[in-house]
Amino acid sequence: MPSEFALIDTYFRRPTRHTLLGIGDDAALLTPSPGYALAISTDMLVAGTHFFANADAEDLGWKVLAVNVSDMAAIGAQPRWALLSAALPAASERWIANFSRGFFACADQFGIDVIGGDTTQGPRNFCVTICGEVPIGSALLRSGAQPNEDIWVSGTPGRAALGLAHIQGQTVLAEPALTHCLAALHRPQPRVELGLSLHGLASSAIDVSDGLLADLGHILTASGLSAVLTIVHLPDLGVARDAYLSGGDDYELLFTAPCTRRSEIRSLSAHLDLPLQCIGRTEPGPTGQLLVFDAAGQPVNFSRRGYDHFA
Amino acid sequence: MPSEFALIDTYFRRPTRHTLLGIGDDAALLTPSPGYALAISTDMLVAGTHFFANADAEDLGWKVLAVNVSDMAAIGAQPRWALLSAALPAASERWIANFSRGFFACADQFGIDVIGGDTTQGPRNFCVTICGEVPIGSALLRSGAQPNEDIWVSGTPGRAALGLAHIQGQTVLAEPALTHCLAALHRPQPRVELGLSLHGLASSAIDVSDGLLADLGHILTASGLSAVLTIVHLPDLGVARDAYLSGGDDYELLFTAPCTRRSEIRSLSAHLDLPLQCIGRTEPGPTGQLLVFDAAGQPVNFSRRGYDHFA
Repeated sequence: MPSEFALIDTYFRRPTRHTLLGIGDDAALLTPSPGYALAISTDMLVAGTHFFANADAEDLGWKVLAVNVSDMAAIGAQPRWALLSAALPAASERWIANFSRGFFACADQFGIDVIGGDTTQGPRNFCVTICGEVPIGSALLRSGAQPNEDIWVSGTPGRAALGLAHIQGQTVLAEPALTHCLAALHRPQPRVELGLSLHGLASSAIDVSDGLLADLGHILTASGLSAVLTIVHLPDLGVARDAYLSGGDDYELLFTAPCTRRSEIRSLSAHLDLPLQCIGRTEPGPTGQLLVFDAAGQPVNFSRRGYDHFA
Repeated sequence: MPSEFALIDTYFRRPTRHTLLGIGDDAALLTPSPGYALAISTDMLVAGTHFFANADAEDLGWKVLAVNVSDMAAIGAQPRWALLSAALPAASERWIANFSRGFFACADQFGIDVIGGDTTQGPRNFCVTICGEVPIGSALLRSGAQPNEDIWVSGTPGRAALGLAHIQGQTVLAEPALTHCLAALHRPQPRVELGLSLHGLASSAIDVSDGLLADLGHILTASGLSAVLTIVHLPDLGVARDAYLSGGDDYELLFTAPCTRRSEIRSLSAHLDLPLQCIGRTEPGPTGQLLVFDAAGQPVNFSRRGYDHFA
């Protein structure tokens, strides 16, 4: 088995493109562009909680970076730099090579320099820190929503949760839904282009990682608003409906925008070739209150909004 | 048990002092000062590998931040911002409160804003990312050492490893050494002031986390040099000698400087009230070669240089 340092050199040290100093010293050095703030976020993924112990290494490499890239998308930042810390129970070199391939596939797709990290022995755990740049004053905050704005969501929420339900035998998906849902679960596509395009258009944004209702709840709490959702495309079936409303791991963007911007948002949807659905509106009512109706105008009951690690 | 979000609010969200946007959104926002680069580093600490499962929560809170602060010291940066990710097997609120107290004691001592993180369920694992600022061009790199320079180390290397050896019954320490060694192990003091004072004085630096010889080896490899050490204060006893040469977890600074700067470094030692020992010199010889002599000029044999997680 190669040493810790040889493994890092072989599988994680690549030339950087926009970094003063990358992997190999006590810290990396970088500078955001003039007029830009540095956006920074971190996510930890743990075997048994966020992924199966036997998860495909290459998919996992993609996903641990992609879920972090999604935080950059949600705040409207261009992702630029990432650090990867990994605890591994035993370092199989083949496993690490596959993991690295998925990780760098994501890094390359989004133009990210991998600039540091840490490796250690322990129960499988990955912690990525991502940094990006956003023009000062342009970030998409959770707290920016105003009353009587449209609430939008990208893509098809619930796919990742449905894919997981299929794997766990709670539902049976047919093609092509199965392929789409497993792709959403294993190879989530962070909506970076959308986030960047929402500067000056959206008043608030968040990515759907805990579940649609839970993440909308974060916007409502931060903005001091309530909301009424009328979801035309809400699935009838219980499992699919739960996945749509409360399934995590989707990494679609949920955002608010003034009603006057609808045509621009529809144009953006066409331009990005990405569905953007208007699913409701914000209201000045009691902070955090959430009413949900289906296409027929019937109230929808939901037992939980999303995932809480310690609930 | 309070929710994940309530725990973060209660124990980890504090007012920030030099941050555009702190905890509570998809990312934090910050800007390094004009003319400064952002230094960034991350370290992961795992139960059973880096600390005992029953470690004191407050000490552990201090240490997981302090070892990251040490990376800022080693590169000569002023630490400014930190993110904390934690996997916990079961969230005992009292344990979290104690951990938070130690973590913020360290953050406050070094003027660090805690700006983000992640919490999840899983085997106990902490991953901190630290950011600091260093004037562009002033960072202390591993690669800057020149031939025929002095090699210096701060403090008393090996204390943390000796403290650990005492706990594990491999040696028995008497007071006051016991207190000093346990403090070094549980409450390491990152040498931030020293790192900042070495701008323009040291040619290279690293913190002693893997072991004195191992970390000196990193400088030699990065700078393409060999070294001869003559360690006047090398302990006689096997356990103490091994701890001095190869014990990790010390977080003292090891640095090189031209021989012409000796008097300035001795003044700095007095000013900081911190021992700085000259333990050898760099040579142009084969990269990474390391010869060690004791005070009597006798060669010292060493079986390993330091710690490798996958060796």
